[in-house]
Amino acid sequence: MKKIAVFPGSFDPITKGHLDIIKRAVPLFDEIIIGIGVNSDKKTLFTISQRKVWIEQVISQFNTIRVADYQGLTVDFCKSVEANYIIRGLRNSSDFEFEKSIAQMNADLADNIETIFLVARPELSHIASTLVRDIIRNGGDTKAFLPDGINLKTLQ
Amino acid sequence: MKKIAVFPGSFDPITKGHLDIIKRAVPLFDEIIIGIGVNSDKKTLFTISQRKVWIEQVISQFNTIRVADYQGLTVDFCKSVEANYIIRGLRNSSDFEFEKSIAQMNADLADNIETIFLVARPELSHIASTLVRDIIRNGGDTKAFLPDGINLKTLQ
Amino acid sequence: MKKIAVFPGSFDPITKGHLDIIKRAVPLFDEIIIGIGVNSDKKTLFTISQRKVWIEQVISQFNTIRVADYQGLTVDFCKSVEANYIIRGLRNSSDFEFEKSIAQMNADLADNIETIFLVARPELSHIASTLVRDIIRNGGDTKAFLPDGINLKTLQ
Amino acid sequence: MKKIAVFPGSFDPITKGHLDIIKRAVPLFDEIIIGIGVNSDKKTLFTISQRKVWIEQVISQFNTIRVADYQGLTVDFCKSVEANYIIRGLRNSSDFEFEKSIAQMNADLADNIETIFLVARPELSHIASTLVRDIIRNGGDTKAFLPDGINLKTLQ
Amino acid sequence: MKKIAVFPGSFDPITKGHLDIIKRAVPLFDEIIIGIGVNSDKKTLFTISQRKVWIEQVISQFNTIRVADYQGLTVDFCKSVEANYIIRGLRNSSDFEFEKSIAQMNADLADNIETIFLVARPELSHIASTLVRDIIRNGGDTKAFLPDGINLKTLQ
Amino acid sequence: MKKIAVFPGSFDPITKGHLDIIKRAVPLFDEIIIGIGVNSDKKTLFTISQRKVWIEQVISQFNTIRVADYQGLTVDFCKSVEANYIIRGLRNSSDFEFEKSIAQMNADLADNIETIFLVARPELSHIASTLVRDIIRNGGDTKAFLPDGINLKTLQ
Repeated sequence: MKKIAVFPGSFDPITKGHLDIIKRAVPLFDEIIIGIGVNSDKKTLFTISQRKVWIEQVISQFNTIRVADYQGLTVDFCKSVEANYIIRGLRNSSDFEFEKSIAQMNADLADNIETIFLVARPELSHIASTLVRDIIRNGGDTKAFLPDGINLKTLQ
Repeated sequence: MKKIAVFPGSFDPITKGHLDIIKRAVPLFDEIIIGIGVNSDKKTLFTISQRKVWIEQVISQFNTIRVADYQGLTVDFCKSVEANYIIRGLRNSSDFEFEKSIAQMNADLADNIETIFLVARPELSHIASTLVRDIIRNGGDTKAFLPDGINLKTLQ
Repeated sequence: MKKIAVFPGSFDPITKGHLDIIKRAVPLFDEIIIGIGVNSDKKTLFTISQRKVWIEQVISQFNTIRVADYQGLTVDFCKSVEANYIIRGLRNSSDFEFEKSIAQMNADLADNIETIFLVARPELSHIASTLVRDIIRNGGDTKAFLPDGINLKTLQ
Repeated sequence: MKKIAVFPGSFDPITKGHLDIIKRAVPLFDEIIIGIGVNSDKKTLFTISQRKVWIEQVISQFNTIRVADYQGLTVDFCKSVEANYIIRGLRNSSDFEFEKSIAQMNADLADNIETIFLVARPELSHIASTLVRDIIRNGGDTKAFLPDGINLKTLQ
Repeated sequence: MKKIAVFPGSFDPITKGHLDIIKRAVPLFDEIIIGIGVNSDKKTLFTISQRKVWIEQVISQFNTIRVADYQGLTVDFCKSVEANYIIRGLRNSSDFEFEKSIAQMNADLADNIETIFLVARPELSHIASTLVRDIIRNGGDTKAFLPDGINLKTLQ
Repeated sequence: MKKIAVFPGSFDPITKGHLDIIKRAVPLFDEIIIGIGVNSDKKTLFTISQRKVWIEQVISQFNTIRVADYQGLTVDFCKSVEANYIIRGLRNSSDFEFEKSIAQMNADLADNIETIFLVARPELSHIASTLVRDIIRNGGDTKAFLPDGINLKTLQ
């Protein structure tokens, strides 16, 4: 059976931390779909299309990765793309407790979908999307946090 | 002295996790009041009356439990119903740190009210209300998370 | 049914933290047995009889508390004294994760024995037995950590 | 080189916990600036000027402490006041994981600014601003949580 | 490239928790080697050969799993069996912090070996080997914790 | 008053993580004493003199740092060298809970000695002494973990 995995998130924007997890997951799966979860109640900093452009740009060298957006439950999206794995990165123990509950509840919803965790590399383990957005909003320098080639200046 | 306990929460909606804690607390107390805390600033998924109906339904077999809603501080509600105990369930260490501060601050506010903690059973330890609501909003199957007899379909 | 609880531990020696949990549990139970768990593999700082003397001294004013020592599993000791509750104090999240597993495994071993947790008062939440023993071994001043009346000097 | 530190926060309102950290940091630094971070997106309970009045009142006896408000990134505020240190208090492990990421990201933004952590005293370790505001909103007694001399009654 | 994974541990003895992680990892890998780490300094409850017998018994139905023992570093064992993955289970946040450091240090030692984490199922998340050994030593009933078919009675 | 700090530990051996904390603390203090705590009950991998040699080697460029060994309580050592500060590094939340209790108990023992915490840099946050010793014992490559210039090969 083909091993297809979804890496879900809001990627608002994609960080060096996300990208590292994705790259390390490549050898494990036949196909990885980066799933941008769209939640109409939650205000994001960047539009879906902008987030997609950046993701496509940083994964362009990998022919087994593609990006898609979805609404609704992650397990339903997995079914729609025939994925049997979910990939998640773990940075610290707060992350862990939250991700643990989600993975366990997802297993109740769809017991044939397995969640696979990778631990962030130490040098990227402090990069939190919330804080990155805060830095962006205040005009701070994001080069330590965003993948090379993502240029916020050309955007504005 | 009669042992009266309040089990406070938003119960939006009541889950299998809540119900298990309540049932396990029954032998310890002469009376348990499930207190639905009403906070006008916080948007809930279900109305107070709907949440009450479900709670009453699942506790109907216990004659020492009743349900009430309240506004304001939990310790003030305890005083109004002459409760000297607060019951809380603990699922993981994030829960714990938050609940610890609340219990300790409540003890400063009312030193005759003691908070009693029960740890969730392993098989229910992953059920988080926030995630359950997310599943409900997206039309997922909640039978693993909600008490038997709570039927969201008849509601709509 | 009589509510009998065991408060298990090594009490090597009993601290202000232990004593506070015991006192706060008194109103909840008809009888509390402080159970000194004896593990022949683990070296203790004080003899069982010395630990007992100190415990008896600090609980002398409570007629519903007694002290006993036991070998083997805590749930087996509970059965032997007809206790249906175990009392444990929680100080921080490391404590919590450890105590959670024990309580959940005890429930698997004896499903009619319920573990009740109380959170340490803030001003006693830092008192760790291991550290107290370290201070004793090095001749430090223990008056902030041990119950009033426990005098290590008269012992030596 | 002069040792100047910023103690950033929203101080909505300043608590006994904040004040204890500030006082304990005084001997370490030549100057401490209490920086009220202003975030137009976040609704606060008290106005900036009210928060400032209270802070000035409780630090009046210290001639090396002053208060200021700022917008934007904390590291940028530090640069503007020539501070090379940030002071933060830690209460529990949830605090810690959050503060760790912020400190590490700030070091990426400005590697000459060092974050110094003090651990809350046990008896103040449970005081959480969010919970204090909840107590204020509901008319509870805050004397255990707010510095002596802060009188919410005269305010209204 | 063949996907070969090592699942390292002391398996003293193998628990339902271990077995569940192993079974869930089967579809991901071409071969899984359960590696019993032998540390001459650490006293175990059961002999290596006894631990192997039990593991072989519970994996007999899987033709892609085998068991082996090793001394020295886990990454060196991985190289010797040409494994490029390490599998680990996570039960709670104490586990997590410890496992995170090990995985990150292993990546420094051998950057082509990736550690893959699975979260324990809720109903098995409380099973800790240390506690299981304690129950065995005291003659308690282990059927809730050990895989079906592991009979400690026939051993003695 | 002169600002003198003790950085206590067993330094068995000193790691890149320790050295980074020490260097970052230099600007804050007039003098830093690296205190090798000697506990006759605890077996170490390297002799005190060997540990001292390595520490002296890596701090040779700093004229405000010296190394000493001590027995007994850290606060007593602080008094003997007239230090009013203790420096500690924090890597993760397990570290934190342990260090918090120690710092708070030390404050009870000596209220004029303040513990100052620095958070490990992300890229060094995974380096745990216990794991480093394990790697050394098994002949693994320690160059990612030990300060440049510490050559274990010349030792043997």
